[in-house]
Amino acid sequence: MTYSEMTREQLLAEQSLLKERYNAFKARGLNLDMSRGKPGKDQLDLSVGIYDVKDYNADGFDVRNYGILDGIPSCKKLFGDLMGVDAKNVIIGPNASLTLMFDYICQCYTHGAGSTPWCKLDEVKFLCPVPGYDRHFTICEHFGIKMINVPMNNDGPDMDVIEELIKDESVKGMFCVPKYSNPQGITYSDEVVERIAAMKPAASDFRVIWDNAYCIHDLNDEGDQLLNIFDILPKYNNEDMVIEVCSTSKITFPGAGVSALIASDNNIAAIKKRLNAQTISYDKMNQHRHVKFFGDANGVREHMKKHAAILKPKFDIVLKHLENELGDKGIASWFNPNGGYFISLDVMNGCAKRTGELCKEAGVTLTTVGATYPYGIDPNDSNIRIAPSFPPVNELDVAAELLCICVRLACVEKLLG
Amino acid sequence: MTYSEMTREQLLAEQSLLKERYNAFKARGLNLDMSRGKPGKDQLDLSVGIYDVKDYNADGFDVRNYGILDGIPSCKKLFGDLMGVDAKNVIIGPNASLTLMFDYICQCYTHGAGSTPWCKLDEVKFLCPVPGYDRHFTICEHFGIKMINVPMNNDGPDMDVIEELIKDESVKGMFCVPKYSNPQGITYSDEVVERIAAMKPAASDFRVIWDNAYCIHDLNDEGDQLLNIFDILPKYNNEDMVIEVCSTSKITFPGAGVSALIASDNNIAAIKKRLNAQTISYDKMNQHRHVKFFGDANGVREHMKKHAAILKPKFDIVLKHLENELGDKGIASWFNPNGGYFISLDVMNGCAKRTGELCKEAGVTLTTVGATYPYGIDPNDSNIRIAPSFPPVNELDVAAELLCICVRLACVEKLLG
Repeated sequence: MTYSEMTREQLLAEQSLLKERYNAFKARGLNLDMSRGKPGKDQLDLSVGIYDVKDYNADGFDVRNYGILDGIPSCKKLFGDLMGVDAKNVIIGPNASLTLMFDYICQCYTHGAGSTPWCKLDEVKFLCPVPGYDRHFTICEHFGIKMINVPMNNDGPDMDVIEELIKDESVKGMFCVPKYSNPQGITYSDEVVERIAAMKPAASDFRVIWDNAYCIHDLNDEGDQLLNIFDILPKYNNEDMVIEVCSTSKITFPGAGVSALIASDNNIAAIKKRLNAQTISYDKMNQHRHVKFFGDANGVREHMKKHAAILKPKFDIVLKHLENELGDKGIASWFNPNGGYFISLDVMNGCAKRTGELCKEAGVTLTTVGATYPYGIDPNDSNIRIAPSFPPVNELDVAAELLCICVRLACVEKLLG
Repeated sequence: MTYSEMTREQLLAEQSLLKERYNAFKARGLNLDMSRGKPGKDQLDLSVGIYDVKDYNADGFDVRNYGILDGIPSCKKLFGDLMGVDAKNVIIGPNASLTLMFDYICQCYTHGAGSTPWCKLDEVKFLCPVPGYDRHFTICEHFGIKMINVPMNNDGPDMDVIEELIKDESVKGMFCVPKYSNPQGITYSDEVVERIAAMKPAASDFRVIWDNAYCIHDLNDEGDQLLNIFDILPKYNNEDMVIEVCSTSKITFPGAGVSALIASDNNIAAIKKRLNAQTISYDKMNQHRHVKFFGDANGVREHMKKHAAILKPKFDIVLKHLENELGDKGIASWFNPNGGYFISLDVMNGCAKRTGELCKEAGVTLTTVGATYPYGIDPNDSNIRIAPSFPPVNELDVAAELLCICVRLACVEKLLG
């Protein structure tokens, strides 16, 4: 029976049972964290062999010294192969692709994208598929870019909405996580990717930030397939519209990985011009270490299977609790992702914040409710991002069950008024 | 006899002798490079032990994972001890302090320094002690900041000139290399540092970028002593006026070191606010590696003696040739530096470019003549930056002698008209 079908008496009885279970959890003095997409220690241990790499000779170049602005050739090739693009369209970045995205938006803000610098305009707007990644929103907020929510469908952002909104010339761009989106784990369908590649925005300097953070981060043998947007863009003469980024943050180490930016010849030239003022090179020893450790793109893909083996049981245990506790109540829905780092849970409108509070009181930290929306405002107060990667399975088992109880309690409360 | 005392006949005879020597060098088909301040291979080898550091536990924190925006505490302490400031006033940066400087100027450009963003102003000017470091000038050019040359004296920039110029509210800052300045190797005197700390610029958001790149880079046992400007700033209520940077580029590796920024509480807070949008953290494994390798600030200082032992003979051989070939001709002057990476040679006005051409023709590359001035324009065409660190001593011996011959040839040509 769904909650909405219950009588007041039935709801009160349900509440009483749930409170009992909740208090039992609370009495255990838990301290569990499902807030951020951090790899677990066992995942980090998969890559410690990288520190056995001690030589510093990359094709005759001493990576310890100055030089090579855009990355050592072997590392550009590795990322090019992995992402299906030519090495000349790759710039190797610092340890975080977040920095590449921030710096690129900053470049548009100070110097434009072959256009008027955005800082000289009265208003700049960005489209944000929601729910989405809070750090994309933080970049927009930092530069005073007005964010417009765009709903996500099961195959990517709602393109009908987007095609309308881009008729406004002050709409200058859009953040996308096209594979295993953060937080839903949705991969954009071929049709959506094609429609994005075909867009004709009013703004000539419209930029899609294609944050391919989970490009090879499958949980199952058969991962989702994402079209390579750079294969499609030329058909629409839109090569300059997309800036793609990725990194090894969740392949080797979040704190000490390597990032990469992929862009058209024009954009690469513009970015290198700025980069030449900003640095002499990023850390080339770390680039070299990664190349030596993996060998080639297949080496990286093989490595990802070890991550999947660790992560899959963690996702499964959370999904099991969601199914068992919430499957037939009509108060929650979620997407069963084939990869990525998150499970996105949508609860009855007006119940997400309360769920977060209840969890916190009982010792379970979730991603701040609202953080998956621009300005931290979830208009329906319904989305909860679950990050199952960091806690060990036994802790997740407890945390996920407790989360479900909190969702049910919050919804019962709401229905009782 | 100085060249200016020579008769036309004497000059012609001198030219003929010099041409003979020059042609002999030219016939050797040399390919020597004294253009950039790169450490030599033997210097890089001093630090390879850093790659034996494989553990990743910094005071209980796993440096491989996300977190710790402003640097691991042990690394902040190391740089704090080295620079004589509290660790709370240190932010650990990426592998290049150039990036910290670029990013800070960028922050002032987009968000101001507690003031109107510089991008919203009609004109922003910076003071540039000349000759100076070309990459400082490149940052200014990138942001359209108008550069004003300020002459250098033997004890630092001409403070009388500066104290006049800062009465203009559009003058927003100044780049300084206060110890072993690039290129002269001059260390600012106590009086100059005190006068800088005491400045009262018309612009409330005036910023001194204190690029302490050669803070512990002595060539001799008794290095120059630079006052710690952060000890003096409070006396004048000027703590927020200075942003200091340094790095291990020339301590461990140019391509894989660690940088640091030192600033007041207010500035640290403002920088961290931006940084929080730009990254989750810089490479903490590399920070940890550096801490473990050096142990403490004294470990770094001891390590620098090994660099000095390699660099000192290189500086000596160049200075020997300058003294022998140019000492009594009245056509050149230079500063005998006690540390740093360069020798700055001032030749007769109008002769630097020609010297560079003659060197190039004979196979010796110098720093592009003019690069030591804003916009690449040396108004007197007289300054040549010599970078003796990279070539082996035997090559320097040849290159320095040839350089001197070229200087003499260029000056004779000029005098003959």
